[in-house]
Amino acid sequence: MALEPNQVDAILEHVDAHIDDSLERLFGLLRIPSISTDPAYAGECRKTAQWLVDELGTQGVDASIGETDGHPMVTGHARKPDGLNAVFYGHYDVQPVDPIELWNTDPFDPVLNDGKIFARGAVDDKGQVMTFLEACRAFLAVTGSLPIGLSFLIEGEEESASKNFAPFVRANADAYRADLALVCDTGMWDPKTPAIVTGLRGLVAEEMTITCATRDLHSGGYGSAACNPNQVLAELIAGLRNNEGGVTIEGFYDDVVETPDDIREMWKGLDFDEKRFLGDVGLTTPAGEKDRTVFEQVNARPTCEINGISGGYTGEGFKTVIPAKASAKISFRLVADQDPEKIRAAFHAHIRKNLPPDCKVTFADHGAASAVAVPFDGPYMEHAKQALTEEWGREPVLHGGGGSIPAVESIKKYLGLDALMIGFGREDDAVHSPNEKYDLESFHKGIRSWVRLLAKLA
Amino acid sequence: MALEPNQVDAILEHVDAHIDDSLERLFGLLRIPSISTDPAYAGECRKTAQWLVDELGTQGVDASIGETDGHPMVTGHARKPDGLNAVFYGHYDVQPVDPIELWNTDPFDPVLNDGKIFARGAVDDKGQVMTFLEACRAFLAVTGSLPIGLSFLIEGEEESASKNFAPFVRANADAYRADLALVCDTGMWDPKTPAIVTGLRGLVAEEMTITCATRDLHSGGYGSAACNPNQVLAELIAGLRNNEGGVTIEGFYDDVVETPDDIREMWKGLDFDEKRFLGDVGLTTPAGEKDRTVFEQVNARPTCEINGISGGYTGEGFKTVIPAKASAKISFRLVADQDPEKIRAAFHAHIRKNLPPDCKVTFADHGAASAVAVPFDGPYMEHAKQALTEEWGREPVLHGGGGSIPAVESIKKYLGLDALMIGFGREDDAVHSPNEKYDLESFHKGIRSWVRLLAKLA
Repeated sequence: MALEPNQVDAILEHVDAHIDDSLERLFGLLRIPSISTDPAYAGECRKTAQWLVDELGTQGVDASIGETDGHPMVTGHARKPDGLNAVFYGHYDVQPVDPIELWNTDPFDPVLNDGKIFARGAVDDKGQVMTFLEACRAFLAVTGSLPIGLSFLIEGEEESASKNFAPFVRANADAYRADLALVCDTGMWDPKTPAIVTGLRGLVAEEMTITCATRDLHSGGYGSAACNPNQVLAELIAGLRNNEGGVTIEGFYDDVVETPDDIREMWKGLDFDEKRFLGDVGLTTPAGEKDRTVFEQVNARPTCEINGISGGYTGEGFKTVIPAKASAKISFRLVADQDPEKIRAAFHAHIRKNLPPDCKVTFADHGAASAVAVPFDGPYMEHAKQALTEEWGREPVLHGGGGSIPAVESIKKYLGLDALMIGFGREDDAVHSPNEKYDLESFHKGIRSWVRLLAKLA
Repeated sequence: MALEPNQVDAILEHVDAHIDDSLERLFGLLRIPSISTDPAYAGECRKTAQWLVDELGTQGVDASIGETDGHPMVTGHARKPDGLNAVFYGHYDVQPVDPIELWNTDPFDPVLNDGKIFARGAVDDKGQVMTFLEACRAFLAVTGSLPIGLSFLIEGEEESASKNFAPFVRANADAYRADLALVCDTGMWDPKTPAIVTGLRGLVAEEMTITCATRDLHSGGYGSAACNPNQVLAELIAGLRNNEGGVTIEGFYDDVVETPDDIREMWKGLDFDEKRFLGDVGLTTPAGEKDRTVFEQVNARPTCEINGISGGYTGEGFKTVIPAKASAKISFRLVADQDPEKIRAAFHAHIRKNLPPDCKVTFADHGAASAVAVPFDGPYMEHAKQALTEEWGREPVLHGGGGSIPAVESIKKYLGLDALMIGFGREDDAVHSPNEKYDLESFHKGIRSWVRLLAKLA
């Protein structure tokens, strides 16, 4: 089905005329607290999946719940055997909401305030998923059918490392044969400039727990003499970084591919303002590798971050305890060609080597993914550049993303598909933070961007 | 009132005959969850204070609630204007119970199991306070009166640094003029050998909170580039100790008085088994200052211990967050002549000096106390040694205690009284830990020990 330009205009007009309805549907989705990492919300995750199955059903998609060992997958097919077929990927799960006291509004009672949609998941990823579904809905309303063949894989565990996505895709690969993947879980270059993400970092998520004495001790009786796991944990964490901001784990950088000179040249042309990037969150001084720019650090270098620490008494007041254990949640972002399992093993070895006498360590695996790269050329990429340029009046910036979407690796690995990663988030969206938001403009023009791209692909 | 030897025997027999009643009263006290550090338990603390006021009232003591800016004080007087007067000190508050999942029984539902009383506060300090009150009760039952003049100061904030004890004693000093103080909040030398504690370490309790960015950040977007308060906190904590196990804060050891040679000689005569001391809690290797014995470390050296750390996501699962803040609860044990406020200031200066760019630190004061020393000679000490020798069949060991009882410093400072610190706890009592216990033998022979001492003081 090739579309006439005036048909595209009609669809865009339909989007504009019905944006309030689109917003209302998004709010319905945002109201379900689908926090995947906390088992207490398993029922809510399933409810969210069913909501999406029902939603896809109204668009002529043969949608259903796909069971996994974890939260269910939303699956759906409206394929065109003789035409172009794409797999759309997104996720319906969201991050936890703590520290809840810093939210100005209830994270699961979405509000539109000053042109911004505030809610957990507003941008990551419910709002973004809905830009695509609303574009499909507009096509259906105006032309009576979807523009290309589509399959859907909307998972419920992206925020908890996508453990069950790879097995699901591997087991169901035949049903998802297609020409390309479309992913809406990334951001704009800046509020006026769209972006296409051409690479994602990998991820290793680990938890380590240090135990020393067989029980909590009174610091008056055992202080100094007994090793304190809080102290040991702190020393182990401090030892993960050297004075130059680099990671000290042996072999950590062995397989890191240095950024090619031509890419570095392209970066120089970007108006990435390091001062503004840090200044927006109250910082002035880059904290990482001293010999790398901030842009390189967050796009093309591996990292080691301590996402959580806890040990001993952390309530109100004070308790002079030497606890029996302390633990940390640690994640590594990886770049090509770092192997997640090799990095995990190197981390374990590093900690075991530096563990003081009498201390024991246990590790918990919170998931892993390799980095992925998408080629810069090809017809679909060209369509995407054109569509975004038409909608935003500026050419999109093509760049590597700092984050990790493990599913994109699985889609490449098991379906053989490169992903067009297009999203409309902004840097100030407070992803994973209190007061997460999505600009109404991102949502509205996001829908319009997908309409334009789908029309070109059709 | 001088007592005949057969009167003392009659009182001891009374104690033996009524030990079940004594235990029942102790269980009543243990059932009230008087956790002083958690504001949620303020009502329970007051209830406990009232329980003790009522209890003292039945012993002819003019007892009442003494209001403070925090939890109330239990006060009481049964003075002998022409005789010997003592102030009894103890505390009715207890430590928090976490980690609650490690308790074998409900911490506030005391049970007697295998000759041991299990409950939060069993030894620290409700069980010990009750040894003294039950001794008084036995005197009253057999002789019709208390043996010496007594005043009571039983506080409700010992476990949260006794912030309001000093002001209370200072303001009410006239009512507490006496000849000596009796304190029951310490332990035995070993299960068969009693002890008199002749010195206590001081304490500085601090909380520091590190903030970096103005909000939580996504580690995929800001990793490495933005300073991570978990990492900064870990590095600051690691930097508090040097490789020799010493504290690195400038001036920390300046006012530390070295242990005199004769005391060191006395220590050599003690059968302190370093291996057993550590081995009892699953350790083999001393963790503190490498050039000091374990005994010296826990009795006569200052310490720096991290009692709690927290930052970022610490719930189930994983969250790739760079938090906006992280914090630690830190305590220092002090020895003579270290000044708590000087140490606090030196700690603040040390942290501020080592704080990386973009980081802010705030401190919270959780209390302080100087170290105290009690002279080894004098008639009361002699009476105490005799009484304990008679009850336990062994001479008590006189030694410095590793813990801190800030009230003992205030009693010395504002009432001018030296304290006889006698207690019946054992090393395996799990003070401040899950499954805290007090041996029935400690309780029973503790009561008998006080009977013997009070008889000698009469």
